[in-house]
Amino acid sequence: MLHDLQALTVNGERLWQSLADMAQIGATPKGGVRRIALTAEDKAGRDQFVAWCKAQGLAITIDRMGNIFARREGADSALPPVISGSHLDTQPSGGRFDGCYGVMAALEVCRTLDDHGITTRHPIEIAVWTNEEGTRFTPVMEGSGVFAGKFTVEHARAQKDVNGVTMGEALDAIGYAGDVECGKPVAAYFEAHIEQGPVLENANEVIGVVSGGLGQRWFDVTVTGMDAHAGPTPMHLRRDALQGATPIVAAIDAIGRAHPDTRATVGHMRVEPNSRNVIPGTVHFSVDLRAPTDAQLSAMETQVREAAARECAARKLEHTMVQTVYFPPTPFAKVCKNAVRSAAQRYGYPHRELVSGAGHDAIYLASVCPAGMIFVPCKDGISHNEIEDARPEHITAGCNVLLQAVMEMAGVV
Amino acid sequence: MLHDLQALTVNGERLWQSLADMAQIGATPKGGVRRIALTAEDKAGRDQFVAWCKAQGLAITIDRMGNIFARREGADSALPPVISGSHLDTQPSGGRFDGCYGVMAALEVCRTLDDHGITTRHPIEIAVWTNEEGTRFTPVMEGSGVFAGKFTVEHARAQKDVNGVTMGEALDAIGYAGDVECGKPVAAYFEAHIEQGPVLENANEVIGVVSGGLGQRWFDVTVTGMDAHAGPTPMHLRRDALQGATPIVAAIDAIGRAHPDTRATVGHMRVEPNSRNVIPGTVHFSVDLRAPTDAQLSAMETQVREAAARECAARKLEHTMVQTVYFPPTPFAKVCKNAVRSAAQRYGYPHRELVSGAGHDAIYLASVCPAGMIFVPCKDGISHNEIEDARPEHITAGCNVLLQAVMEMAGVV
Repeated sequence: MLHDLQALTVNGERLWQSLADMAQIGATPKGGVRRIALTAEDKAGRDQFVAWCKAQGLAITIDRMGNIFARREGADSALPPVISGSHLDTQPSGGRFDGCYGVMAALEVCRTLDDHGITTRHPIEIAVWTNEEGTRFTPVMEGSGVFAGKFTVEHARAQKDVNGVTMGEALDAIGYAGDVECGKPVAAYFEAHIEQGPVLENANEVIGVVSGGLGQRWFDVTVTGMDAHAGPTPMHLRRDALQGATPIVAAIDAIGRAHPDTRATVGHMRVEPNSRNVIPGTVHFSVDLRAPTDAQLSAMETQVREAAARECAARKLEHTMVQTVYFPPTPFAKVCKNAVRSAAQRYGYPHRELVSGAGHDAIYLASVCPAGMIFVPCKDGISHNEIEDARPEHITAGCNVLLQAVMEMAGVV
Repeated sequence: MLHDLQALTVNGERLWQSLADMAQIGATPKGGVRRIALTAEDKAGRDQFVAWCKAQGLAITIDRMGNIFARREGADSALPPVISGSHLDTQPSGGRFDGCYGVMAALEVCRTLDDHGITTRHPIEIAVWTNEEGTRFTPVMEGSGVFAGKFTVEHARAQKDVNGVTMGEALDAIGYAGDVECGKPVAAYFEAHIEQGPVLENANEVIGVVSGGLGQRWFDVTVTGMDAHAGPTPMHLRRDALQGATPIVAAIDAIGRAHPDTRATVGHMRVEPNSRNVIPGTVHFSVDLRAPTDAQLSAMETQVREAAARECAARKLEHTMVQTVYFPPTPFAKVCKNAVRSAAQRYGYPHRELVSGAGHDAIYLASVCPAGMIFVPCKDGISHNEIEDARPEHITAGCNVLLQAVMEMAGVV
């Protein structure tokens, strides 16, 4: 029996078809998906998911954040469930796989278990987390954040979109404000997701065993000098804010390269007055630091602050650097990593351990239960884009690994 | 007689009052002036100037570009005039001195000559050039440009403002489209102007003997990499356009410092997609190179192109660099420089020779006659700003020098 279970595979064609069917809801002309949280498209996607689950005999519950749980009963229904899932909402110009893959893969796991009449000891639940993308309502990962106790339902429901509609009103409007309180005991959580980066594809590997989520510190930096006419102002009398910002921006990149597995990015820059023949008086830019440990994050921040102080002092410029975002580093549970790794090994999938640089619902879940993620390659590492793409064999492989990891943590009777 | 003439001084209080009176027209709450070319305010400023000239017995002519000439007859009216002037139009948030000073100083020269009953051999004309600032209609220095044959009246009149009104229509509407053809023989041209830079103030000097106008080459540079998520994309797999642009921007500043009397400025930068957690895929920036000689300009351009090619190749980025503006270097006539310098010496004004980094009507005039400029300090080098300011004693000193230079070139009978 054990041998057979380890060779068990999901129905890749059925999984691929589910993804294709769900991609019809909010489909864009360029082949992407626009299914923004708590819109009519999101409701239609949720309804489709619920219909599929009911057809599969799964029991639906919806919590006050609109998180959907579809339960496949276990041999011991008193045990906490093993949960797997992700989100169905997308970016405004999103793709067919981000989020949706994790939900459809979990559904395919349940279907496969049904196909083979397999009963698990723990119940299994498929989760659809509300507003992961944070496109319409902030913060990102709102549903899983409330589930994990990071903020309250009341806080989340009060957030407004650009038209002044609150998240609570939007949830009520689409009929997905459930009455179940948020949060409950969870035996383990797994999430399959496209990598959204280039590492696996570059290495010709199929499975990413995700070791955890990078911690993040974001800052806003402002460098201030004096704007002046480019023509009449000699070089030695300038206080050019852009020339002060430039070496800081270069230092940030070098700092990201100097530490293992870290990232340092300046994505946003605004120059004032931003006129061709005026020396810039002010430059604003963002700093996004990510690292596996808080010690690295702190060291990187110190180095950025030193670079900013040094370069501004050298040019008689002023500057400020203010933290705007902090997410702590989140190592995933060893038991979950091991379950993912050994499944990949058994199928013979080329794999590697890697960190998640982006945020995922699994990162909030990791604070309340053992959690793990399975990454599969996506084309050119591109995501949050209508051209987001992935190969069917990779999609199937990730789901096979999910199947094994879920069976291992849920136990098979 | 010669000795007396060399000790002659203008009426500084009258000059200061003229500036104050003109500053009432289009005055802004913050103490600046908004008198945009060919608006009702510009018409009111012109009307005031014309009224003052008529009161002084000067003869007004207006050419097809709306350039105003107020003529003080000379002993030999067949000789070409010595012209002095500048412009009365301002930036949208302009100051009280930029342009206006050159016109009021020329008027004060005529008034002073009248006070002392002095007759010059050449006629003297005060010029008000149309649309120097280029705020409403492009190009800048439009009136003097047509006068100097750089482009045609028809071309200039066809230029449209943001509301689709042509320059010709605006000129007709305020009644300043004259019937005199543009351009005529000129014995010499002088223009007094605030420096618009910090050199004189920093050196505690009163008079800038302007040696000429810097040549200018402007470029648009685009650096292209690949935008990607800041989180999932490791440093070594990035093609970050901002990190490619950064060392080029730094190199441009260094190139400006490496050559004598040159300027190199990046005033405009635009990052795409300019999102905090997205690696920039494209960066556009401007390059403004200025130098006293074409050889320097060419050497600087070569160095910028080399830096761009080197930095982009090192990061697997593409780039383009396209020239958008070229103004040739314009050395002023030795005879005019000498007239300005010796006047400053005679009055005992601390002075230095400096180049004009900005464009002025005198630079176009220099292509059709001997031309020169007199700079006086402005507070903190600030111009094109409502807080633009200058000291009365410097304003007077510049006008005294203008008086001497005009008398020298026009001859006194």
